Amino acid sequence: MAGPYFERVAFIGIGHIGSSLARLLRREKMAGTIIASARRKETLDTVMRLGLADAVTDDPATAVKDADLVVIATPLSTYREIGQAIAPALKPGAIVTDVGSVKSLVVRELIPLLPASIRVVPGHPVAGTENSGPESGFPEVFQNRWCILTPVPGGDAAALDQVTRMWQAGGMNVVTMDPEHHDTVLAITSHLPHLIAYTIVGTATDLEETLKSEVIKFSASGFRDFTRIAASDPVMWRDIFLNNREAVLAVLQRFNEDLTALQRAIRWGEGDKLQELFTRTRAIRRSIIEAKQA
Amino acid sequence: MAGPYFERVAFIGIGHIGSSLARLLRREKMAGTIIASARRKETLDTVMRLGLADAVTDDPATAVKDADLVVIATPLSTYREIGQAIAPALKPGAIVTDVGSVKSLVVRELIPLLPASIRVVPGHPVAGTENSGPESGFPEVFQNRWCILTPVPGGDAAALDQVTRMWQAGGMNVVTMDPEHHDTVLAITSHLPHLIAYTIVGTATDLEETLKSEVIKFSASGFRDFTRIAASDPVMWRDIFLNNREAVLAVLQRFNEDLTALQRAIRWGEGDKLQELFTRTRAIRRSIIEAKQA
Repeated sequence: MAGPYFERVAFIGIGHIGSSLARLLRREKMAGTIIASARRKETLDTVMRLGLADAVTDDPATAVKDADLVVIATPLSTYREIGQAIAPALKPGAIVTDVGSVKSLVVRELIPLLPASIRVVPGHPVAGTENSGPESGFPEVFQNRWCILTPVPGGDAAALDQVTRMWQAGGMNVVTMDPEHHDTVLAITSHLPHLIAYTIVGTATDLEETLKSEVIKFSASGFRDFTRIAASDPVMWRDIFLNNREAVLAVLQRFNEDLTALQRAIRWGEGDKLQELFTRTRAIRRSIIEAKQA
Repeated sequence: MAGPYFERVAFIGIGHIGSSLARLLRREKMAGTIIASARRKETLDTVMRLGLADAVTDDPATAVKDADLVVIATPLSTYREIGQAIAPALKPGAIVTDVGSVKSLVVRELIPLLPASIRVVPGHPVAGTENSGPESGFPEVFQNRWCILTPVPGGDAAALDQVTRMWQAGGMNVVTMDPEHHDTVLAITSHLPHLIAYTIVGTATDLEETLKSEVIKFSASGFRDFTRIAASDPVMWRDIFLNNREAVLAVLQRFNEDLTALQRAIRWGEGDKLQELFTRTRAIRRSIIEAKQA
């Protein structure tokens, strides 16, 4: 399917996901001109050196001027400030989308700040590696992954269609969802796993030095898989936990109960309970392999 | 370095690791004759079909007769019974080694059962995939991984040397360690990560059906990495937790404290604490990459 075409695209923030999308827009010729804004001069220099944008600026309002599509790809804590900065500068009828991992936030903080003519399509491409920064992006990162859009009720159908086709051009399977439901699902599949990985790696960093070096040495026995996840961008993840607090705390509560039950089974030598759980969890892995997400 | 040569090798249990070692012995011509014993007829048939052994039996005592090297590669809960069964049948001076993930157990349960002439070299090749059974083995699984031996104080140096060279022939880096220390290190690097992975995947299996199918769909966002670990052999892992109880409960206690602190930071919106931890955990990943264990 042919992708859409945007005369002028503005990126607010252009790290791992933003730069991957910029590369995709270039590859599929979906953008006339690309403007990128970022806070740090170093990022802007990198973006120009890599040819990811035609022009760069440290001012979001300047970036969005005359843009047909605005992509917000910054940590969630910046959304309010960005909304305030770009609102007066947006071209009437412009499409504004984002790539953030919490979607109720967009409804809560971003949409109220923007003029009524702006067509907001909140989005979350569920893709990426543990790397960050504009150099780490690549357009194939979206291939065969899911993209969740959480369209505004009564929102513009043409804008939703264009954003959908943009992600589809990157090989994504696009689905729509209610923002609160998105945040619940992602709390389980993404936010809790990251929280647990950060915790276990943190526990290891607090060990005495000799033991720590041995943990690194023998990390291939399980620990290693957690360190990859726990190497993800610190600010991005801080913001995810702060902005999806209720859903994360709710699923964490369930996890804690289950862990306590396992702990008790180990203490009292209840092998049958352990074996039952360990057998049950195998089935989920098979489902993931069947769903071609392994 | 040339591997050792054993006229007759007996495997007690021949699953993922046992069959990988049998393949390695064949490839490197380190064994004259290989005898394998297993409980299930199906396993024995598979072993013969794959040519992993020259003869099979369901009786451990029959298997070890005249063997120069006996490799115990069964779940830990079978060690006592196996020790009792093979003790009267072992050839005087035979080397007995194992591949189990808890090493103090060998000192506690296996060694006391065997005649004084038997040269025991407890071992743990820290390698393997989440798959199980004799068909899943391959000799390259040991390449560039660590093998930890926990030699008996005052034990036979020649036996230690032969077992060391056998694993080195598979590309392993062999180190020796005190059994209790081994169990502490592995509780952190392997047993806790598996326990956490089993828990989080278990938490997901308890979700209502619609939500569960969405968790599978969007598993690539972090959850997926845990399901691979949580697909490991249920009986093997039940036995690890039951037999390394103290070390696992101790490290789990630390993990719980750290998780509670994170939970509290999320509840009270303490972003600086989250960011500090998430930055610290990145360093461990770099160390693992530098140690070439990534």
